[in-house]
Amino acid sequence: MGVRTAEEYLSGLRDGRTVFFRGARVDDVTTHPELRVGAEHTAIDFRLAEDPRFRELFTATLPDTHERISRYFLPPRGMQDLLIRREMIETSTREGGGVVLLVKEIGTDALFTLTLVTRRVDEQYGTDYLDRVTRYHAYCQAHDLSLAVAQTDVKGDRSLLPSRQANPDSYVRIVERRPDGIVVRGAKAHTTGTAFTDEVIVLPTRALSEADRDYAVAFAVPVNTKGLTLIASPFGFTGSSAFHHPVSSRHHLVETLTVFDDVFVPNDRVFLAGEWDCAGTLANTFVEFHRYTAISYKPPLCDLLIGAAALIAEYNGVAGASHVREKLTRLIAYTETVRSLTRAAALDCTIVDGIAVPNTMATNIAKQYFAMHYHEAVRDVQDIAGGLVVTGPSEGDWHNPATRGYIERYLGGKQGVSTEDRLRAINLIRDLTASDFGGYHEILAIHAEGSLEAQKITIYRGYDLDRCRALAKQAAGIGG
Amino acid sequence: MGVRTAEEYLSGLRDGRTVFFRGARVDDVTTHPELRVGAEHTAIDFRLAEDPRFRELFTATLPDTHERISRYFLPPRGMQDLLIRREMIETSTREGGGVVLLVKEIGTDALFTLTLVTRRVDEQYGTDYLDRVTRYHAYCQAHDLSLAVAQTDVKGDRSLLPSRQANPDSYVRIVERRPDGIVVRGAKAHTTGTAFTDEVIVLPTRALSEADRDYAVAFAVPVNTKGLTLIASPFGFTGSSAFHHPVSSRHHLVETLTVFDDVFVPNDRVFLAGEWDCAGTLANTFVEFHRYTAISYKPPLCDLLIGAAALIAEYNGVAGASHVREKLTRLIAYTETVRSLTRAAALDCTIVDGIAVPNTMATNIAKQYFAMHYHEAVRDVQDIAGGLVVTGPSEGDWHNPATRGYIERYLGGKQGVSTEDRLRAINLIRDLTASDFGGYHEILAIHAEGSLEAQKITIYRGYDLDRCRALAKQAAGIGG
Amino acid sequence: MGVRTAEEYLSGLRDGRTVFFRGARVDDVTTHPELRVGAEHTAIDFRLAEDPRFRELFTATLPDTHERISRYFLPPRGMQDLLIRREMIETSTREGGGVVLLVKEIGTDALFTLTLVTRRVDEQYGTDYLDRVTRYHAYCQAHDLSLAVAQTDVKGDRSLLPSRQANPDSYVRIVERRPDGIVVRGAKAHTTGTAFTDEVIVLPTRALSEADRDYAVAFAVPVNTKGLTLIASPFGFTGSSAFHHPVSSRHHLVETLTVFDDVFVPNDRVFLAGEWDCAGTLANTFVEFHRYTAISYKPPLCDLLIGAAALIAEYNGVAGASHVREKLTRLIAYTETVRSLTRAAALDCTIVDGIAVPNTMATNIAKQYFAMHYHEAVRDVQDIAGGLVVTGPSEGDWHNPATRGYIERYLGGKQGVSTEDRLRAINLIRDLTASDFGGYHEILAIHAEGSLEAQKITIYRGYDLDRCRALAKQAAGIGG
Amino acid sequence: MGVRTAEEYLSGLRDGRTVFFRGARVDDVTTHPELRVGAEHTAIDFRLAEDPRFRELFTATLPDTHERISRYFLPPRGMQDLLIRREMIETSTREGGGVVLLVKEIGTDALFTLTLVTRRVDEQYGTDYLDRVTRYHAYCQAHDLSLAVAQTDVKGDRSLLPSRQANPDSYVRIVERRPDGIVVRGAKAHTTGTAFTDEVIVLPTRALSEADRDYAVAFAVPVNTKGLTLIASPFGFTGSSAFHHPVSSRHHLVETLTVFDDVFVPNDRVFLAGEWDCAGTLANTFVEFHRYTAISYKPPLCDLLIGAAALIAEYNGVAGASHVREKLTRLIAYTETVRSLTRAAALDCTIVDGIAVPNTMATNIAKQYFAMHYHEAVRDVQDIAGGLVVTGPSEGDWHNPATRGYIERYLGGKQGVSTEDRLRAINLIRDLTASDFGGYHEILAIHAEGSLEAQKITIYRGYDLDRCRALAKQAAGIGG
Repeated sequence: MGVRTAEEYLSGLRDGRTVFFRGARVDDVTTHPELRVGAEHTAIDFRLAEDPRFRELFTATLPDTHERISRYFLPPRGMQDLLIRREMIETSTREGGGVVLLVKEIGTDALFTLTLVTRRVDEQYGTDYLDRVTRYHAYCQAHDLSLAVAQTDVKGDRSLLPSRQANPDSYVRIVERRPDGIVVRGAKAHTTGTAFTDEVIVLPTRALSEADRDYAVAFAVPVNTKGLTLIASPFGFTGSSAFHHPVSSRHHLVETLTVFDDVFVPNDRVFLAGEWDCAGTLANTFVEFHRYTAISYKPPLCDLLIGAAALIAEYNGVAGASHVREKLTRLIAYTETVRSLTRAAALDCTIVDGIAVPNTMATNIAKQYFAMHYHEAVRDVQDIAGGLVVTGPSEGDWHNPATRGYIERYLGGKQGVSTEDRLRAINLIRDLTASDFGGYHEILAIHAEGSLEAQKITIYRGYDLDRCRALAKQAAGIGG
Repeated sequence: MGVRTAEEYLSGLRDGRTVFFRGARVDDVTTHPELRVGAEHTAIDFRLAEDPRFRELFTATLPDTHERISRYFLPPRGMQDLLIRREMIETSTREGGGVVLLVKEIGTDALFTLTLVTRRVDEQYGTDYLDRVTRYHAYCQAHDLSLAVAQTDVKGDRSLLPSRQANPDSYVRIVERRPDGIVVRGAKAHTTGTAFTDEVIVLPTRALSEADRDYAVAFAVPVNTKGLTLIASPFGFTGSSAFHHPVSSRHHLVETLTVFDDVFVPNDRVFLAGEWDCAGTLANTFVEFHRYTAISYKPPLCDLLIGAAALIAEYNGVAGASHVREKLTRLIAYTETVRSLTRAAALDCTIVDGIAVPNTMATNIAKQYFAMHYHEAVRDVQDIAGGLVVTGPSEGDWHNPATRGYIERYLGGKQGVSTEDRLRAINLIRDLTASDFGGYHEILAIHAEGSLEAQKITIYRGYDLDRCRALAKQAAGIGG
Repeated sequence: MGVRTAEEYLSGLRDGRTVFFRGARVDDVTTHPELRVGAEHTAIDFRLAEDPRFRELFTATLPDTHERISRYFLPPRGMQDLLIRREMIETSTREGGGVVLLVKEIGTDALFTLTLVTRRVDEQYGTDYLDRVTRYHAYCQAHDLSLAVAQTDVKGDRSLLPSRQANPDSYVRIVERRPDGIVVRGAKAHTTGTAFTDEVIVLPTRALSEADRDYAVAFAVPVNTKGLTLIASPFGFTGSSAFHHPVSSRHHLVETLTVFDDVFVPNDRVFLAGEWDCAGTLANTFVEFHRYTAISYKPPLCDLLIGAAALIAEYNGVAGASHVREKLTRLIAYTETVRSLTRAAALDCTIVDGIAVPNTMATNIAKQYFAMHYHEAVRDVQDIAGGLVVTGPSEGDWHNPATRGYIERYLGGKQGVSTEDRLRAINLIRDLTASDFGGYHEILAIHAEGSLEAQKITIYRGYDLDRCRALAKQAAGIGG
Repeated sequence: MGVRTAEEYLSGLRDGRTVFFRGARVDDVTTHPELRVGAEHTAIDFRLAEDPRFRELFTATLPDTHERISRYFLPPRGMQDLLIRREMIETSTREGGGVVLLVKEIGTDALFTLTLVTRRVDEQYGTDYLDRVTRYHAYCQAHDLSLAVAQTDVKGDRSLLPSRQANPDSYVRIVERRPDGIVVRGAKAHTTGTAFTDEVIVLPTRALSEADRDYAVAFAVPVNTKGLTLIASPFGFTGSSAFHHPVSSRHHLVETLTVFDDVFVPNDRVFLAGEWDCAGTLANTFVEFHRYTAISYKPPLCDLLIGAAALIAEYNGVAGASHVREKLTRLIAYTETVRSLTRAAALDCTIVDGIAVPNTMATNIAKQYFAMHYHEAVRDVQDIAGGLVVTGPSEGDWHNPATRGYIERYLGGKQGVSTEDRLRAINLIRDLTASDFGGYHEILAIHAEGSLEAQKITIYRGYDLDRCRALAKQAAGIGG
């Protein structure tokens, strides 16, 4: 099979899955008036693989079987593969209006992670998890499946370990072990795309103590598995007008609260089940792969912001103003810093068991830099755009003959630019920065793929302070 | 009459005014399902004047007539009056959910400005504008009228003076002079609250050349004046659910594109008509009064953000984390810097013809500081809040028995905090920072009351660089 | 006596005090080739009091005795007094080349503090400290004495209380109690100006536990007291060339390690001796007075930096460049923010027992803001100045006929500016920012009057978070 | 010959060159009490080439002649060579106490540039410059010569082109053309290392107009050439005490004002002479190579700062404080951002005529990022270090028995750390950040290798805004 069409993919989502949205059970996510936007957005992945312009980038032919598969499934073997992977993510995000698709990116981040980590678990515990992972990987690849990853537990009291929580289900856990599999209970928050993927992979979210043994659990299930309920979040859906919401009316991520209500997982889908001292490694290794994905999908959104700012500056007749150039320069440097650091993370990757792991330090400083300064980038774009972003007329006024003339006459920009184009440019900036959708992007910048504090800890721990202190001692003439 | 009730005020808005919203003419702004929120918000001004807790602050008794009037109409005579004015604005904004009312604040800024500047115009030109302004002021005060101010022209090509524009109506201008008045044409952008005020005062937006004589025009008209059309902006209206939109479902500003289609203004309402070399002074003096209003209404919103961040930190059990304290400290210092600078602007006011003008330098650095760092404040609040701000469930899911249990079970915070309270705190943060309404606040921070660049210019020009250069020369031993 | 002349003051410093500098005992600090710069700098205080231009500002006439005294000794009774005090400090610092004199400022900060706090101690413990303080204050005032304050202990291991230190003398302590006084031992770090003052007042540095009883000690002694040794720091002395070091060759602070080697303090000079639970209040109250002094003396240095930057921009012919204006605007806003916040701290003072205490919040945000951004201000000045600041010729080359011609010919700026003036302007910037003296200023910005972290804690604790949380709850619809 | 010893190199500097320093002619730069520090610092380059630990990195064997040469002379052929070059510069700077050697780095930057650009000039003008450059390159390589590059003209009025200056010698120019060569006059500012190199290469500093033909000149001469005078700058020389100045007493750059007083340059040393339209390309191409050198030598200094900060935090017993970790994390991210971007600049190099040119965008954002935030890094280091950096005792006091005991007793840190080690760590921080030498580093950060504004322009111009605008148009639904 290898590569599915977008229609095959969409048809696969009509599988009886349990999805709730705005208080109602959703029969078919691909036809629901709002959720379908998310499904169509995700389907871009499959369309790109069919598109002659992008087919070479997004698919690969297996040397032995000559089967054509989605390139996402190929583990990166070195710098070049990581650079191509970055290019795939940048390209598909650009085609997705600056919104990452996350239909295979995150899932394969998890598959590579599981391949690396279960080998160590097997060595330590004599388990056969790697075999299961390998077979599962082959299955997903062969059927061109889309994959969500559920990692972040709902957590309850953040200062307590899972086993100490008042609610024992604050972290997903094994509630029963059977000969043929395990039964799991709990919920994961912030799972992106679950409503639109075939499968969901579940990983632990943190290091555990021995008492947390039952929380050391990793597995994968089809989304329509019995007991699995998705409560999809409505935030970021701002409306369906292509005039007011040129991007968000077409491109969208949807997160779910992903509830496992005593879900049975057969053994061949279980990848960790009690090996508590491996949970931290599994969680952290995944994060490192996934932050590389993160920093790969940030620059296309930034390019869109830069373009929108440059466009409205031109339309307003202020493209040559020194402060506008200063702000555009700041936006460019911001974007290129992230992009270049991502490439550096590929260059300085580590090869572990034949899989290229992006450089942790470069990945984390890129992610932290992006997150720390995203709001300032938004400010600069809004600053260039002007107040009309939130004081302008609605689409209805534009079409109403009683007001159209006034708007035409009074809201034009510099000569040669139509009022409609100017309004469209302004609407784009509102949609991207000053709306429910813009708010979604702000939160995403800070919280997706780990918080600012998580990245700071990684940066601090990853640097060789002993080396630096030794340099300082030598320079200061301090012996010993 | 002196002080009207809120109901009297609202009833006054049903006067046949021409308001368009979302493509339709609005019959009655006080009953329109969306716009009524704006009217009710503005009405808070009148309710506070009736409220025993606030009556002393918001009203004053005239010594001669013993009439009780809204205190806004009293020109500030010194520091103390400016501090009280600041307190009125801070208090009413706090009662308005962090949203300024702007029902008399900006209008009286304009009245004080006109009083100061028309005296100069009269001296130079032998006109009688000051008399007209004085009578108009008395009229507004006596009838407790609400006032909008329309200043910013739509501008067309920003690099050209009004008289050089391809569209001669890019700035509001006098198209006819009659014995009994003038006829004006053009449009003003970003006029706040026009749909909910009795009157609108029009001021020029910039310094002019002699050729721009017809653009040097200031006047006031009732909002239901013939030829006056308001096109109200829908942005920031996010929805009516008090659960999802705890603040924006109740508090709201509405801006209009304010179109003057050959509006006749009788002479006693005309305050400038051709005195081109006074237009710049009028524009700038108003801005200085109005920026003081601006920096007075910013801290209550910030306090709400601080409170929301502190609350969710507590609910999530991380109130004691050092990074949370660091971020809260940053938010506090940000807020208090603006508040203290505002008080310093009162302390260092200048008394001109008996009217206290807030200190320009302190006012502008406060405004610029607020605007420059607002997005970072938003980032810190969102950072503390967590990703659930945009991945949580909808109100419908909360009320649906099929999902309520899951949400109760899995989205609680630390012990002793109800899941509902936690969701409400998260919804508050979304409403304030990550929504259409949040986007509105971001744009407002940067663009309302003048752009960042305008403030920078004022700061640069307002400082005595000669004095500093002399200090440097003396220190450097440079003679002359 | 009331007001001494500068010569009387200097003569008073020749009192046999024990001062070490660069490894040698100093006989007379007023004639020592380097230290005399510090003494002459401090003497400016006395010269200003004699100067007809400044006499009114710096002195006051006592109503009862008609004695003229230094105004520093008068406790501030309200806002106006605090504003005058600010003006005195700003003025004298400006006359001191941007370097605060600190000859009575800090000492009277301590006297006001002791007046406030010993009243509470006396009430609690039945002691008579307030009487002693009052008499000591009168004595200093009558003899126009200069005063240093030694507060910061050397501290040893910062994580341990005084009584837990391996070295029991890590904090100054009482080692013996006699009927007629106490004997103290220990050392204070960073004491400014001790070598040039008549008296030194010693205060505790932190809150203490009951076990630290002996460390709860405050007192005053003449600097030439037996057992008192000053080890003066040489850092910041860069050289005596007025060409290379136009400011630092004339203006200078000197800090000492102030060692108390079993110093006897008679009872009437002892202001706290064991009342451990009052030590924290004493330490913190002093800090609040003293941070107000701090933020009062910062703007004159900033004005000098602004002037130097504006001057060299003019000399280089780039005064009109947009980036230069942007940077100057940043410097101005920086300076005026501190100055305005200082005035706001006076406006919002608290009157305690008739003494006006500057507003803690405004004082601390001003201090923290200044400290946090001083290095960026330095960067902007250096950026405007150009690389010649550290690549230019020496004074010797300028005077050497073999090179003078080349320098004249090649290092001139725009027409009409002499090469010598340009070099002097560059030298000023080097002296202020890129030299030992510049480094001294950088450290001073961060560490003098308490560290950044100390200010952050004060800001965090000083804000009413409960009020903010209540606002948020109300806005969010959270009951209770 | 291939590789010289350090002694051969130093001996070569005794060649009668004309150097002035502090007003006197210097006979021998290698024995002068101050300048010798600079010569010894530069000599490290030759010592590393002899050192078994570094020999492989710093030298290469020519495949044809088997001659061993300094690797600097090999033009980079691709990413790998650029990464090695970065490693050479980082390593030698680290061995040089955080101070770049700049003995061959900048010279070979110029040689690679000349190779690339003269090929174009020759094609356009039929000249034979490339041959001359090739022979000169071979000569320098064969004799292992050290090279300075003089580029920045003294400029006079910065708003005028060279030919419009009041002083026609404000830019170096050809004053006579002879059959056998040219005669040049003028001066270059900020030339690093000239006093310690065998040769100096001269390049134009900016784009020129046709009228500036005589200013379009590039050439190379031995430093002892007749008519060449160096006026060496004394700034940054702080003193010879290894205790007070652990780094600057041993490592040092020296800049000169480099005066060409009718210097004759024979034809084979002339690389541009009148081809005015190529001057800009030559200037800019050099800058791109040289900014890569710049960003390669910044991280070792930063590592030293990080190490010093971590060390003093440990000695003071505050290494575990959350704010200390926050600041160290900031310093690490700062350093690694520069380092990673440098590696990305190598990865994304462009191969032109077989020479790898580092990526312009990555190079410039790295340089600008470094320069923009260096002062904040200094602040964080000083913040961690504490006030003792400028209030501590001198070396003399440490050795004086009368004070040594007090210092030992009172200035120790946490247990187990000797007072001397603590003082040494503090002295290191003062030397690096709060001294003449520290000031030198601050200015260097901003101005060396081009100003912040120059980098901003390059960043702005280098980005494809058309592509971004097209993205925005497509997203906004704007046709055309």
